[in-house]
Amino acid sequence: MFSHNLLRSVSSAVCKKCEGLVPKFEAIFGNEYVKTTESFRDHYGHDEGHFPNRPPDIVLMPGTVQEVSAAIRLCNEQRIPVIPYGTGTGLEGGVTAFKGGVCLDLKRMDQMTQLNEEDFDCVVQPGVTRKMLNEMLKNTGLWFTVDPGADASICGMIATQASGTCSVRYGTMKSNVKNLEVVLADGTILYTRGKNRRPWKSSAGYNLTDLFIGSEGTLGVITSACVNVHPRPPALSAAVCSFPDVARAVETVVNIRHMALPIARIEFLDEKQMQACIAHSKLNMEEKPTLFMEFHGANERDVEEQTALAEELCILNQGIRFEAATDTVGMNQLWQARHMAYYATMSQRKGARGFTTDVCVPLSQLPKVVTETRKDIDASGMYGTIVGHVGEGNFHCIFPVVEEDEKEMQIIWGLSDRLVKRALAVGGTCTGEHGIGLGKINYLKEELGEEGVHLMKLLKKTLDPNNILNPGKVLSE
Amino acid sequence: MFSHNLLRSVSSAVCKKCEGLVPKFEAIFGNEYVKTTESFRDHYGHDEGHFPNRPPDIVLMPGTVQEVSAAIRLCNEQRIPVIPYGTGTGLEGGVTAFKGGVCLDLKRMDQMTQLNEEDFDCVVQPGVTRKMLNEMLKNTGLWFTVDPGADASICGMIATQASGTCSVRYGTMKSNVKNLEVVLADGTILYTRGKNRRPWKSSAGYNLTDLFIGSEGTLGVITSACVNVHPRPPALSAAVCSFPDVARAVETVVNIRHMALPIARIEFLDEKQMQACIAHSKLNMEEKPTLFMEFHGANERDVEEQTALAEELCILNQGIRFEAATDTVGMNQLWQARHMAYYATMSQRKGARGFTTDVCVPLSQLPKVVTETRKDIDASGMYGTIVGHVGEGNFHCIFPVVEEDEKEMQIIWGLSDRLVKRALAVGGTCTGEHGIGLGKINYLKEELGEEGVHLMKLLKKTLDPNNILNPGKVLSE
Repeated sequence: MFSHNLLRSVSSAVCKKCEGLVPKFEAIFGNEYVKTTESFRDHYGHDEGHFPNRPPDIVLMPGTVQEVSAAIRLCNEQRIPVIPYGTGTGLEGGVTAFKGGVCLDLKRMDQMTQLNEEDFDCVVQPGVTRKMLNEMLKNTGLWFTVDPGADASICGMIATQASGTCSVRYGTMKSNVKNLEVVLADGTILYTRGKNRRPWKSSAGYNLTDLFIGSEGTLGVITSACVNVHPRPPALSAAVCSFPDVARAVETVVNIRHMALPIARIEFLDEKQMQACIAHSKLNMEEKPTLFMEFHGANERDVEEQTALAEELCILNQGIRFEAATDTVGMNQLWQARHMAYYATMSQRKGARGFTTDVCVPLSQLPKVVTETRKDIDASGMYGTIVGHVGEGNFHCIFPVVEEDEKEMQIIWGLSDRLVKRALAVGGTCTGEHGIGLGKINYLKEELGEEGVHLMKLLKKTLDPNNILNPGKVLSE
Repeated sequence: MFSHNLLRSVSSAVCKKCEGLVPKFEAIFGNEYVKTTESFRDHYGHDEGHFPNRPPDIVLMPGTVQEVSAAIRLCNEQRIPVIPYGTGTGLEGGVTAFKGGVCLDLKRMDQMTQLNEEDFDCVVQPGVTRKMLNEMLKNTGLWFTVDPGADASICGMIATQASGTCSVRYGTMKSNVKNLEVVLADGTILYTRGKNRRPWKSSAGYNLTDLFIGSEGTLGVITSACVNVHPRPPALSAAVCSFPDVARAVETVVNIRHMALPIARIEFLDEKQMQACIAHSKLNMEEKPTLFMEFHGANERDVEEQTALAEELCILNQGIRFEAATDTVGMNQLWQARHMAYYATMSQRKGARGFTTDVCVPLSQLPKVVTETRKDIDASGMYGTIVGHVGEGNFHCIFPVVEEDEKEMQIIWGLSDRLVKRALAVGGTCTGEHGIGLGKINYLKEELGEEGVHLMKLLKKTLDPNNILNPGKVLSE
């Protein structure tokens, strides 16, 4: 469970050591990109998770990798924490400046600096979000496939090893990065695959790229990424089917994958989530565990074939009311419940904020873990729904919570804690796609063992000997 | 170019320090699994590449991870090199014991210890080869997809980040590993994702798994791996088409990928390779750049659709004689040239051994690099053919060489050297799937820059402070 005593006490004043650096930063960045006012800094002390707001002492807004490098070098000399900031849409407190320091807001670096259509890749700066990138790509026939819901920055998604609804077909962030430009703790600018290199694959030395994916700003600051973009599918279709229980829904997913059906999205909503969606959007659907599917194909017949096969497998697993559509309007209508899932849950409680959990378990363990979790939520007296990227065994509980209600928050943290332990007990992980940040830091040893955490700490020490890079995140100190 | 002076002079005697350890090893392993006779050790001093044979001082044949751990701990105390050995099918000298030491022959650890059909994964020991694994899986409807040609061990393939003909659809080794058991330099047994964990994805801390993939035994010895297995496609088809030039063939690949066609295999053979195949197997085919394709689908109509679309795209790119088949006999006939490519090339020169190069470039650069390489080979007076996993921009030249002819070998190393430089000049890599070993060690700095090599050396120093794990491979000392 998240422990509040990790956090230093709130202080609105800029620390003396940081204050001394302000003129140096201003000389590098110009006055307008060095921010120290409390009202400005306040915005950077939290993400969308449930952790106390702890603003940094200074916010810098670099425009180039050289500026990032210069800033980090100064911070390293002075042993001042450096926290990279993308869109602040994380959920595990990854940007919280609980030791103060310098926040690097990277949004000014917002260019796609290369597009290589024939090679299915592009190079983006850290201020580019996934929606911005897809807008930039709109006339190319290509798209960026990693879709975690939030309009996160691509480099932020790399930092947390994000994924989302499409990764069952197109891979998580990890399988969509060709090269990274990273500024290390001493200011060195590193290209993980060598400068300007974009081979589809390589066996040349250690996987430096993957060392930084999921490192949450604790090993280096990602200032540019060469990522894969995929062809937009010429044909799409969508389908929805309800099931008598979770087990049948999951069994259908296994069957679909066994048939080598290259399904593009397969999402699960539990009965409570469906109830909320039906009430919120006045839908004519079943209040039962439901699968939402999307098929991408080379042409219409291709997606029709895929849809027909999926229907057959749903029916074999006692699916109820399989419905499909190939036109945009019909597809959107079918998927409306999924699109609105979060808002439907939140609408059940006015004035609440969303609290989202995140575990991933082997597919075979999913029915057991989801069923037990449902029971646990119901027994707690809290209201919560379950939605999952079920093709990969990854699911979330969504709770509308009132943060000020400490007792309620204790119940929620308790539910989240038991969920993690349930996932760990069956060979799963405490986080499928949100990262460790502050919120999951205490589970790492249980998940990876002493040896794993020890090696991670050795790596951290090797890459960041002065512990200036997002200190206290991922690994406990 | 590979420099011979890296190698110590040949010595058939076991070094004194190693000799002193023999009784200790015998106490752990039993006499029969501690080998010191010259004739036995001789077999372990080389792989299938072209490097002088340098046998280890002792060959150990462990049966358990505990034995591996005990052996490595002893070697670490005595600063004796440890070289893991799978099948010896590598091509870059990765197993050469040029500093002597202890070779761990892992073939006795040959079990699949877990099969989780519903989770599409299994756990294998390091003695399991890809053919053995597919034999073990034959009644399951599942298969292991990474196919580099040789019957390499799975864990050896992980150590070199191997790939092969199917990775365009099913991913390289890197995207098919869920967890690794690794023995570190001090004997610690590490599970990179935590013991017995098999989540499809995770954002929990640094990617330790990927740190060991492609590390070629220099950071740890892989003693077990949880790898993905994929459903066997219910329907398959194959097709072949020739093109007037390399550029049209590659353009077809780009078009196929742009259409989101999930092609399972797409292989390129150049005109010289086709000449050799036609002569060798008396085929009625064109002596022109040719693409070999395979389609995997959910049913027959699915693969028919894929094949028809591929045909359309081939014809648009001036493809000559597109031929397809869906029955096993027909498919094998069509693919015969590809299956026999290596042997066809070798049959052009009696008594020669094969020498295979390995680069990977962005797809857009492939026509230029292949064309220039063809010219370079022809100008050299050597005979050689080109075959490639063209969907990923990875290709090999195959030369039948007489190793004893030093002048000839100099020409070959020269061709290989210029090929690497050509690949590096257009943003590619010096090795797509064979690894660095000894053979590519001098290219790493050019490819990755000082910063990349420096960080790799730091990682090596952190994980193996006494430099006992496969010393002198991957990184120069």
